[in-house]
Amino acid sequence: MDSSITPHLVCPRTRARRIADDYAPPYPAWSARVDPSVERVVMANYGVQWLGPDATKAFAYARALQATLDADSDARHVDLAHYIDEAGYDTLVVQPYWTDMAAFHRWEQRDDVAAIQAGAAGLGHFREILTPRVARFETLYSSEDEMEGLGRALAQRSPMVQEHAYWGSVRDRFPIAQTDALEPGGQLVFTVDAPDHVMVRGHGNIAVIRSGQDWGPTGGEERRLYLDEIEPVLRAGMDFLRDEGAGCGCYANRYMRIIGLDGTPSEKSFGWSYWRSLADMELWSEAHPTHLAIFGTFMKMGQALNFDLKLRLWHEVYVVAPDEQYYEYRGCHARTGFLKQMPG
Amino acid sequence: MDSSITPHLVCPRTRARRIADDYAPPYPAWSARVDPSVERVVMANYGVQWLGPDATKAFAYARALQATLDADSDARHVDLAHYIDEAGYDTLVVQPYWTDMAAFHRWEQRDDVAAIQAGAAGLGHFREILTPRVARFETLYSSEDEMEGLGRALAQRSPMVQEHAYWGSVRDRFPIAQTDALEPGGQLVFTVDAPDHVMVRGHGNIAVIRSGQDWGPTGGEERRLYLDEIEPVLRAGMDFLRDEGAGCGCYANRYMRIIGLDGTPSEKSFGWSYWRSLADMELWSEAHPTHLAIFGTFMKMGQALNFDLKLRLWHEVYVVAPDEQYYEYRGCHARTGFLKQMPG
Repeated sequence: MDSSITPHLVCPRTRARRIADDYAPPYPAWSARVDPSVERVVMANYGVQWLGPDATKAFAYARALQATLDADSDARHVDLAHYIDEAGYDTLVVQPYWTDMAAFHRWEQRDDVAAIQAGAAGLGHFREILTPRVARFETLYSSEDEMEGLGRALAQRSPMVQEHAYWGSVRDRFPIAQTDALEPGGQLVFTVDAPDHVMVRGHGNIAVIRSGQDWGPTGGEERRLYLDEIEPVLRAGMDFLRDEGAGCGCYANRYMRIIGLDGTPSEKSFGWSYWRSLADMELWSEAHPTHLAIFGTFMKMGQALNFDLKLRLWHEVYVVAPDEQYYEYRGCHARTGFLKQMPG
Repeated sequence: MDSSITPHLVCPRTRARRIADDYAPPYPAWSARVDPSVERVVMANYGVQWLGPDATKAFAYARALQATLDADSDARHVDLAHYIDEAGYDTLVVQPYWTDMAAFHRWEQRDDVAAIQAGAAGLGHFREILTPRVARFETLYSSEDEMEGLGRALAQRSPMVQEHAYWGSVRDRFPIAQTDALEPGGQLVFTVDAPDHVMVRGHGNIAVIRSGQDWGPTGGEERRLYLDEIEPVLRAGMDFLRDEGAGCGCYANRYMRIIGLDGTPSEKSFGWSYWRSLADMELWSEAHPTHLAIFGTFMKMGQALNFDLKLRLWHEVYVVAPDEQYYEYRGCHARTGFLKQMPG
């Protein structure tokens, strides 16, 4: 059975995995593989927020931005997603991925892209951009037929991997965690250029997760179990993190729905959250009743259906160094993203 | 905050703990401390089984045995407990502890003790004896006022410990796990001396847990939550392990009640189980819906009551080398203890 860690990123461990070498997970999962030519990836969030029923300007902004993510942009994958935040604002986020930092910079500096950003005055908008080196992310997919997000950008898939279906497996899938405890360092630094323009400098080893589910392929009893039993406990956990996450190290959480350019919701959702450290993320997921309820409900469903599930579950996790994060907010309300953490 | 590992048993780690050094558990817990004069402990199980309503002979056996565990025996603590096993047999188990191997051997070789064993003909009875070195056990207690089991035998208590309230904390509390993965080695060996006399040689790193709860001090809402919400899911988990545990590496499981010599049940119960390895025990507890339900229900209750609980929870875990185990069955039915694992 293969490791989740892409072979060329394997090194002698100074930090043991939690599992024994003969551990066999109870159901299969796969990871994206990293091509040796890739040194860093870019996962960018271009958000635009508004209050009230008129989404016209926000959609115009998102569509214009998405139109620039053409073949010339070298973006490897793009999602458009929507959520309602803790202040009741609707938010659209365009999420392009690159596997080449230079291509990302070329795109961001294009005149048309700059013009769209400049033309967003009057709309709260933000950029949250992660540019991790390849040792600083991991991915996991429950189905063999399709990947999402970063996996689509990386395009290659592993054989079945060993490090999953146990607590601590996220850490065991990180190349850098072979030798690094990933403890947080420093603190958030806020630079207020103008009342409506705030830059946030992230500290060392902030952890970020995009954790998704695709219930489009499900039917019958599985669909009912997902919609009636899993989704409500998932939503309760997402709401808890959004509203009370600060107490357990969660800086921000969004429960998002992937949508079409015309606003049509797909049957794909995901959580997007920022954490003080990977350890904080682990502790919440392992001990908080809301997450144990999610995990326990899923395991019960998996066992009831003999883990022969059509439901697709996936995630990507990043643990980023200070120079691998960029957060900028223009005209956004004070509880947007990292702004919520700004000392009052 | 102190480590669960008694200071003189601390050594340089080659295997990292799961937690960061600044980890702070959300509620307190304590461990027993090991006096430097203690090299090994003895945890013995003298069981007697019977079918049907007449418990007279079994109680006579247990009372006679318990009467020998007097001051001269140097036993540090004794419990008497009852369970009904997978074949429907009632079973009484006398559980004495020693902190000195020589004292245990002196007691076992006493004429009165030998006579009681010899006189049990006609009753199925067994000895399951663990004699671990001090690096090979760990304990945890949720309350400051009292210890149970091995903690009573060891008699000394730690300050509040850091390694608890997360998955993997059992392993992090083991002195030997500072440098050892505790992987299982070898296999069970059965020696059938006569149809009614079977000896079982344990393999390397069998894991054993005694995990208890004392609801005597609870009242009001907490008592209701324990009896109505926790106990039923606990029982379901215990039944699962007893009847279907083999599939996840559990050799045997007993859900036991501590009773008085007159048979009166106390408000203390515990699970007693044998596992192929600590990793198997970890994986069941972390991933099986029945145990997640137990843990999640407890955490929910803890949070609801702000972790100000009267309920006492405790456990002791052993991971034993081949020479630290002794299992012997006389006249017992074929599903008793390790006999269930005998190739048919």
